[in-house]
Order: sequence, then C-alpha cells, then structure tokens
Amino acid sequence: ARPRVGYFYAGKKNTGALTENMLSLKVKDFMSMPIVVSENMTVYDAICHMFLEDVGTLFVIDKNMRLAGVLSRKDLLRTSIGSQDLNTIPVHIIMTRMPNIAYCEKGDPLIATAKKLIEREVDSLPVIIEQDNGLEIIGRLTKTSITRAFISLAETHEL
Amino acid sequence: ARPRVGYFYAGKKNTGALTENMLSLKVKDFMSMPIVVSENMTVYDAICHMFLEDVGTLFVIDKNMRLAGVLSRKDLLRTSIGSQDLNTIPVHIIMTRMPNIAYCEKGDPLIATAKKLIEREVDSLPVIIEQDNGLEIIGRLTKTSITRAFISLAETHEL
Repeated sequence: ARPRVGYFYAGKKNTGALTENMLSLKVKDFMSMPIVVSENMTVYDAICHMFLEDVGTLFVIDKNMRLAGVLSRKDLLRTSIGSQDLNTIPVHIIMTRMPNIAYCEKGDPLIATAKKLIEREVDSLPVIIEQDNGLEIIGRLTKTSITRAFISLAETHEL
Repeated sequence: ARPRVGYFYAGKKNTGALTENMLSLKVKDFMSMPIVVSENMTVYDAICHMFLEDVGTLFVIDKNMRLAGVLSRKDLLRTSIGSQDLNTIPVHIIMTRMPNIAYCEKGDPLIATAKKLIEREVDSLPVIIEQDNGLEIIGRLTKTSITRAFISLAETHEL
C-alpha cells in the first residue's frame, strides 16, 4: 500500500478508497451458498428443488461430490416444454457438462468474474477448489452477487 | 461541478472521477431493449418468444400498448410444470400485474435502481414513461445491466 503522505492528500481519502475498494473486492466476499443435486435426480424434482431453494442455478455433483454439471432455469424451461416426461428424464441428460462449465475461485477479483459472467452469457458461476478427483463446489457467484457488490461500493462511500 | 483547484489535487483526478462517475450513472446509460407480448398470447408462445429473443423477462402490454404485466422465467417455469395446457392458457392469467410491478425511469440513478432489483427480488425492471393512459415501456434494466455497469466503471478507470 502507498503511504499516506502529508496534509494536502486529506481530501483524497474517500475517493481513493473507492478505487482501492473496487480493486480489492473478491469472489469470497460476495458469493452465496451453492445448491447441489445428484446426476440421477429427475428434471421434475430438480425444478421443484430450484423453487424450494429459490435459486436460478443448480449445480450437479457426481458420486464423489465433485462438479459434474450446471442446470439453469433456462435449461429446465427448455426441457419442460419438450416432449420428454419430466418425471423419468434425469438431469445429467440435459445439464451443461465439463469442460463447458465456466467457474471461478474464491480469491478471484470480482471485476474479472463479472466479465466472465457477461462473456460466457451465464447468470451464475460455481466457486470451486481444485481437488485430485475433480472440482469441489464451495459457493455460487451470480449477477445478484455483482449487483450487491455494486450497491455495497456505493454504501461504503455513502454515495 | 466543483472547480479543479491547484496542482496538489492532480493525483486525485482519477479516483475522484470514479466516485463522480458512479454517482452519475443513469438507467438510460445501461438499459436494453424491452421485449413485449400481448395479454392474450398463450404461455407456450410466450416461452418460445422468450427463447427466440433470449431474454429472462417479457413485459405484457394492453391494447393501448401500456404496461399490463411482467412474466419472468420463473413464472413460466412454474406454470410449465403445472397441470394446465400451455397452449390454451393466456399469459394474463399468470403474469404479475400492476400495482405489484416494480419499475424505473430512464433518469433514475443506477445505484437506486440496483437497490430496487435486490429489494423487490426481481431480475429485471421495465423502464417506463408515465402517460395519461398508463405506463409506456421504453427499456429493460436487469442485473445484467448492473453487471455491465460494474465492469464499465472498472474499465473507464483502467482497474
């Protein structure tokens, strides 16, 4: 950190802090709890689970509890108007799979993660830790998280 | 605007601009095109329209082209797993209606609008102009818009 040098920088404190504050925001400060389901859950049950948990994205885990797929509200809506029986089709048939899943880590800067959400055109990213047998899911970073961060920046500086 | 006074404020310029920039962000700078459907469209057609336009929220208009309702992906998903026939039920049966619709205006500060998205627990707000016969819809302000604004703040200041 730069040292604070002299009285004539006093007026800079608040505004300087906003820039520093924005740069210092990390995924871990704004992530929320991940909601996971197993690969063999039916699409119908997954939709019910999504409503029960009130989230827009479910993460699918394999038998080792590692990230296997992602289910968005859009994926579930697309399937629900198809001809398949929602009570028999398992989520692994319709989920987005690795290596097509965009994810982030808890120490990633929030700015880079916001860009990833926009570039990958998704509403949510799993926050993961790389383990020997796959990706452990420790959080969920969404456009809601970014919206909260945006508000928090303003509130911290009483804008 | 405050005058820039004297050489010892030079170092403040960039950071001061970030604060001023954040305060000056308006809905009109980040809103996108609204996608509207009529009250009598079927739920099935509305779902198809949502995929075609690739949006998360549709706005429903009355015969005078004024705001009558809002349809989220969540509303459509809930209906799609119900027992009703999606090809016969019109959207006005399931939409959120006035006065329960949260909305904003193009000159509103983006910070206040971000707070409204969080408080009302919605992904999208219609941007409206009040007219004698109702609310004219001129835009759509979403959590994606806020995410873009967050990135834009960082990029403007080369963070």
